[in-house]
Amino acid sequence: MNIKIFDTTLRDGEQTPGVALSPMQKLNIAKKLDSLGVNIIEAGFPIISKGELHAIKMITKANLTSEICGLVRTNKKDVDAAIDANLNYIHMFIATSDIHLKYKLKLTREQVIEKAIKSIEYGKSYGLKIEFSAEDATRTERNFLKKVFKEVAGAGADTIDIPDTVGYATPQYIGEITKDAIDVTRLPVSIHCHDDFGLSVANTISAIQNGAKCAHVTINGIGERAGNTPLEELVMALKCLQFKKKMDTNIKTKLLYETSKYISELAKIPVQPNKAIIGDNAFSHESGIHTHGILNNPLTYEPIGPELVGRNRGLTVGKHAGIHGVKFMLEEYNMSPDIKQTRTILDKIKSICDQGKQITDTELFEIANETIKQYKENKLVKLVGFSVSIGIGTMPYAFVKLNINGKNFLGTDYGVGPVDAALNAIRKITGRISQLRIKEYKLASISGGSNALCEVTIKIEDDDNNNISSKYIGKDIVTTSVKAMIDGINKIMLKTNKTRRKKIV
Amino acid sequence: MNIKIFDTTLRDGEQTPGVALSPMQKLNIAKKLDSLGVNIIEAGFPIISKGELHAIKMITKANLTSEICGLVRTNKKDVDAAIDANLNYIHMFIATSDIHLKYKLKLTREQVIEKAIKSIEYGKSYGLKIEFSAEDATRTERNFLKKVFKEVAGAGADTIDIPDTVGYATPQYIGEITKDAIDVTRLPVSIHCHDDFGLSVANTISAIQNGAKCAHVTINGIGERAGNTPLEELVMALKCLQFKKKMDTNIKTKLLYETSKYISELAKIPVQPNKAIIGDNAFSHESGIHTHGILNNPLTYEPIGPELVGRNRGLTVGKHAGIHGVKFMLEEYNMSPDIKQTRTILDKIKSICDQGKQITDTELFEIANETIKQYKENKLVKLVGFSVSIGIGTMPYAFVKLNINGKNFLGTDYGVGPVDAALNAIRKITGRISQLRIKEYKLASISGGSNALCEVTIKIEDDDNNNISSKYIGKDIVTTSVKAMIDGINKIMLKTNKTRRKKIV
Repeated sequence: MNIKIFDTTLRDGEQTPGVALSPMQKLNIAKKLDSLGVNIIEAGFPIISKGELHAIKMITKANLTSEICGLVRTNKKDVDAAIDANLNYIHMFIATSDIHLKYKLKLTREQVIEKAIKSIEYGKSYGLKIEFSAEDATRTERNFLKKVFKEVAGAGADTIDIPDTVGYATPQYIGEITKDAIDVTRLPVSIHCHDDFGLSVANTISAIQNGAKCAHVTINGIGERAGNTPLEELVMALKCLQFKKKMDTNIKTKLLYETSKYISELAKIPVQPNKAIIGDNAFSHESGIHTHGILNNPLTYEPIGPELVGRNRGLTVGKHAGIHGVKFMLEEYNMSPDIKQTRTILDKIKSICDQGKQITDTELFEIANETIKQYKENKLVKLVGFSVSIGIGTMPYAFVKLNINGKNFLGTDYGVGPVDAALNAIRKITGRISQLRIKEYKLASISGGSNALCEVTIKIEDDDNNNISSKYIGKDIVTTSVKAMIDGINKIMLKTNKTRRKKIV
Repeated sequence: MNIKIFDTTLRDGEQTPGVALSPMQKLNIAKKLDSLGVNIIEAGFPIISKGELHAIKMITKANLTSEICGLVRTNKKDVDAAIDANLNYIHMFIATSDIHLKYKLKLTREQVIEKAIKSIEYGKSYGLKIEFSAEDATRTERNFLKKVFKEVAGAGADTIDIPDTVGYATPQYIGEITKDAIDVTRLPVSIHCHDDFGLSVANTISAIQNGAKCAHVTINGIGERAGNTPLEELVMALKCLQFKKKMDTNIKTKLLYETSKYISELAKIPVQPNKAIIGDNAFSHESGIHTHGILNNPLTYEPIGPELVGRNRGLTVGKHAGIHGVKFMLEEYNMSPDIKQTRTILDKIKSICDQGKQITDTELFEIANETIKQYKENKLVKLVGFSVSIGIGTMPYAFVKLNINGKNFLGTDYGVGPVDAALNAIRKITGRISQLRIKEYKLASISGGSNALCEVTIKIEDDDNNNISSKYIGKDIVTTSVKAMIDGINKIMLKTNKTRRKKIV
């Protein structure tokens, strides 16, 4: 059976502290969610601002396949704003827990039910489809919650939603109140979970196993506090794991990774490396035992293939690395050390890592090169000198001197920042060889003082669409970026064949 | 009842791609885990490198309260390495799933059992305590798994561990095989989960509800791929939520946040903002409805108080902000706008956010100031000019010109990077006012091209231990850092009283 996916990235997701999206960005995200196969898009909260209203109007007019929904409180002006935004489907909420009634709403239980009924009747008089949420349902006295659900169903609500507003529920309790809601209303029930104790996926699945037909989720699990149930985790869990009742969704899982990246960039909320499905490390392997297994059959250490969610596999070297992984990684660079050489390379890697240092691909390459002396003159492009100046009243500008195949080249350029200036100057020179584009520039977040380490990853693509990723760690962000760029250029030259690069310069 | 916490941050956590810790760092982490109240510390995998062996020796000699354990495969040389590391307690594993047997071990089921028994007997002959893991237990044929557990118990294993090696199990299945393991062995059972589908906490709790006595976890959930069960989420869920069987742990929860920060910095694995318990936003609120509730009673929108895990609450402004939150935040700066002024400030905030821009505390302050004109001359320190140069063969060096209370001051300094150089030059000047320290410098990770936005957060402390946090967003990392620093200086001056700052300069 298929479970409906109600995506609230544009509403609960945008409530993440620090996230602000323009109407055009919201429209573009809605289109992405539509392509992903989301059933319902909660586009926003119409009453909160003019821009929000404008954004929702743009989305309702965009002719998407997904249904479009908007959030309203139980009052006339919120419902009017939803109608103004051309919404046919509203998500109406009022809190029902005693703590919310006493400290926030300052209403009695009777007054809450009365307000809910009146607002539902008002919405229904305009023919709106209404999904009703009893906010803080999981901390609401259970009999009162049943009463609320029964009353709002009687007043004409079309769907009931159970929000675990502060992420406080256990899977078992969520299952029980889902059954309550179905029993007393006979309406389709949705589940809306938060991840304050890391249980959002399990709680959502428990509701589904107990009869809920729709799950509220966000991309990357963004949202208030610890966030909402992550769409990608729920969808893949339903698809791949052996639950009692087998369920699936309409989501096109191959688009999950690209959608995650898109939202992370627009919302400016990073995804941590150790995050299920979408984290940088979710399909990466370092340990020798794991890498050896993966090379024989990826299913040994991967629950699913990365291609299922639109990703690739990554292998890295480190203290836990083994012979097979190192050999495989070097073969990627056309290096084929024998078993004795591989062991020497592995020992060198381990002794570096034992000092608490990470090994980048570039360092692995250099260690291997030093050991097997296969490519004595492997560096086509060498950095001879560079300088960048930054100040008030100027743009950052850079000077770079490169040696390419023994000949010196000079270049200058400016940019929006010192890194941009330096990389622009480098590209001015290397444009003679190949039109290299920076596909991705990533700066790992640094904690500690202003003299802490930074980690720069640059992905470069040449005019034949070959691409390579280069990572460097250092103290000075500009020098580190320049070195990563030069390395990337050398790697991409090495990857494409030698005769070709000899010819070009 | 108390559940034992078996922390594997130093073993499975260190297997996170890219993580490398020196022996001294491992020892310091072990001490932190010991203070936190962890029952068992898995200190490492003795056979993998000389540094690892050395680190484990240092930890076993440190006289910690926690028990110290190390990982071994089912062979003599791994067990010998553990003995060499002074370990009395080993965690021994061999894979038992058909896919691992066929593609990785190339052994029959009988050979696996034989190897396990022989190695357990060898370990027991040295009097070692042995926790036995059937690797990939959750994908192992269920009857064979029972047989393995029974045989290893017979051979003398002291504890049985059930690893969900690729994070593939459902809470229900984990519960069933936990009961199997207890039934056939009568030994204490541990549970070791991975988070590939976001179910690690729920799976661990299911095992505990079904009789497991010990949980394998890591700080921040670091580990292979999507990582392991996060210690902080499991511990807080057991402590705070209403499970059928009520359980607790020995963990000193007030140390959770500081321990998380410590590991994140040493392992260089960032924690995403929307991460339960430890993420930047886990106790932050932006929406007007939520902020209003929080100001009346924090329990309306927080499942637990932040102080329980050693944290503070955060309020931010944005598109979803309301009157109460804005008023409260401005009062923190001794600004008291009337209701009309507050509404004007709120409208300005919303119209900025509607364009997709975030509002920093500094911008909120400036908007408010412009509206109520309460502090016309609020800036004590103004940036008149600055310049930084970076190059090969030099250290980055900076020149800064500041106007403090109408008087110009010049300063120069160098640093390990351009930001460090500029901030050092500023501190040389402001040292005349107060010995400001940079307590924290954070650069938010940037995706996109080298011309993408960066976000700098600086936490500054003065000599009276007042501290303030300042955030700035911009294109050029150096200029953005300098502006954040100047702002922070003004904020800290404003926070401490005026007469004092007048007197000092």
